[in-house]
Amino acid sequence: MFNNITIVGVGLIGGSFALAVKDKKIAKNVIGVCNSEHTKQKVLELKLVDEVLPLEQAIKKADLIYVAIPVDATITVMQQIMNLINTQQIVIDAGSTKFALCSVLNNYSNRERFVATHPMWGTEYSGPEAAVHHAFNGRACVICEKEKSNKEAVELVENIYKQLGMHLVYMDAEAHDIHAAYVSHISHITSFALANTVLEKEKEEDAIFELAGGGFESTVRLAKSNPAMWAPIFMQNKENVLDVLNEHISQLRKFKSALEKENIEYLNELMEKANKIKRIIK
Amino acid sequence: MFNNITIVGVGLIGGSFALAVKDKKIAKNVIGVCNSEHTKQKVLELKLVDEVLPLEQAIKKADLIYVAIPVDATITVMQQIMNLINTQQIVIDAGSTKFALCSVLNNYSNRERFVATHPMWGTEYSGPEAAVHHAFNGRACVICEKEKSNKEAVELVENIYKQLGMHLVYMDAEAHDIHAAYVSHISHITSFALANTVLEKEKEEDAIFELAGGGFESTVRLAKSNPAMWAPIFMQNKENVLDVLNEHISQLRKFKSALEKENIEYLNELMEKANKIKRIIK
Repeated sequence: MFNNITIVGVGLIGGSFALAVKDKKIAKNVIGVCNSEHTKQKVLELKLVDEVLPLEQAIKKADLIYVAIPVDATITVMQQIMNLINTQQIVIDAGSTKFALCSVLNNYSNRERFVATHPMWGTEYSGPEAAVHHAFNGRACVICEKEKSNKEAVELVENIYKQLGMHLVYMDAEAHDIHAAYVSHISHITSFALANTVLEKEKEEDAIFELAGGGFESTVRLAKSNPAMWAPIFMQNKENVLDVLNEHISQLRKFKSALEKENIEYLNELMEKANKIKRIIK
Repeated sequence: MFNNITIVGVGLIGGSFALAVKDKKIAKNVIGVCNSEHTKQKVLELKLVDEVLPLEQAIKKADLIYVAIPVDATITVMQQIMNLINTQQIVIDAGSTKFALCSVLNNYSNRERFVATHPMWGTEYSGPEAAVHHAFNGRACVICEKEKSNKEAVELVENIYKQLGMHLVYMDAEAHDIHAAYVSHISHITSFALANTVLEKEKEEDAIFELAGGGFESTVRLAKSNPAMWAPIFMQNKENVLDVLNEHISQLRKFKSALEKENIEYLNELMEKANKIKRIIK
């Protein structure tokens, strides 16, 4: 059991991590770092952490530091943290991109105190109110560049995620970002674009409200996601996201062409191919 | 309470309707019409209906006939049915397109015995095994061209759907097909195309399996849908679907352009606009 875990950014991920740490008795004391007085009040009110401290104090006091803020801010704040920690403290991040952060941290002499992780869980909601119990249970957690981190630090981090019910997957930061573009980032872009499609063309919003069934809701759900979180992810993973996005547009064009030509055979072929996703998603 | 309700096509929709009719005691006897011996066995085994009869016998015996088969087959079968029914029987369809069917049935002297309906519920599964209890509860049901149907027939049909927990929405067939393109058909195309995008580019399927979180699953879920059901829907609603699909591709291109130009302001603007879908989808 840790004495003190500090969570920088007590929102959807950080807040859910804080709850899990308490639920699983992973730490005696959980410290939050918030970027506004409003969030601080919310976080304390929701009892997500035991106390909220300014960054520097919170880092000093921590055995383990968990950074769960937008990926652009992560790069800045993580560098501050690396300059503050001693040789016993461990720092983890939970960001959706890994290559940019890992590249920057490679220049730090104490790189081995950092463990790059990405717990593959999230919802379309954000902020402290979005934090939930048992969030990570049953999901995968990616650990990147394991070999660059201190062996004992990695083991401690692995144990935390295992206690949260996650199974671990290992890959390098570059591979992570490619996979993340496919299984997460593109889904968000299609969902945002689908929402805009409907909002653009469908002026009778009442009709959408009345008619939208489960199918529409599930494909458009992610369009409620927080731009402050997603813009930096898309920008940091630009090349991979563009690659997948181009492929997606070209796949949509195939449906367009099949329809325009009333080529029902081709249409069926495209859908039968898509059905193969059953092998992957139960 | 009806004596006999005949359900033509005892799959996802027809089977769920059969279960609801029994659950709500809407009919004493439910007759199924199946297009294969295999389906007949399945339907009886699952106890979805009381008996399975050939089409003509099943129509003769029915007070009310519910047609829930692919929309291309509906046009053929519905015309057979219109030629078989007497002036007291009522026929409903549950199809996802309305304009083509209503246009054809306008030529029938007994058009008023037909009530055009579209219960806005479905899942990505199909066939008798996909039928579930309480399927339609809380969803909207569209009734089209109400004024062309016999008043008492409409009231009986409205009552059935209300007993199933649905709220009724009225529109003409053309408006229905436009709205359906927005709130249902485009979601299926984006989902099919997203599945193909991932299957095309991501050869390491294990990685998808390991990493795919809830977001990916929900946007790609509809890609498991049955091509035999969806190809005829897309074809019958071709013009509207193409219209929405073109808009969707153009919305995706905006994300592409924002990323290519690293225009984070525009990227944020696009996402903030998409967030407005919160007003519509809770």
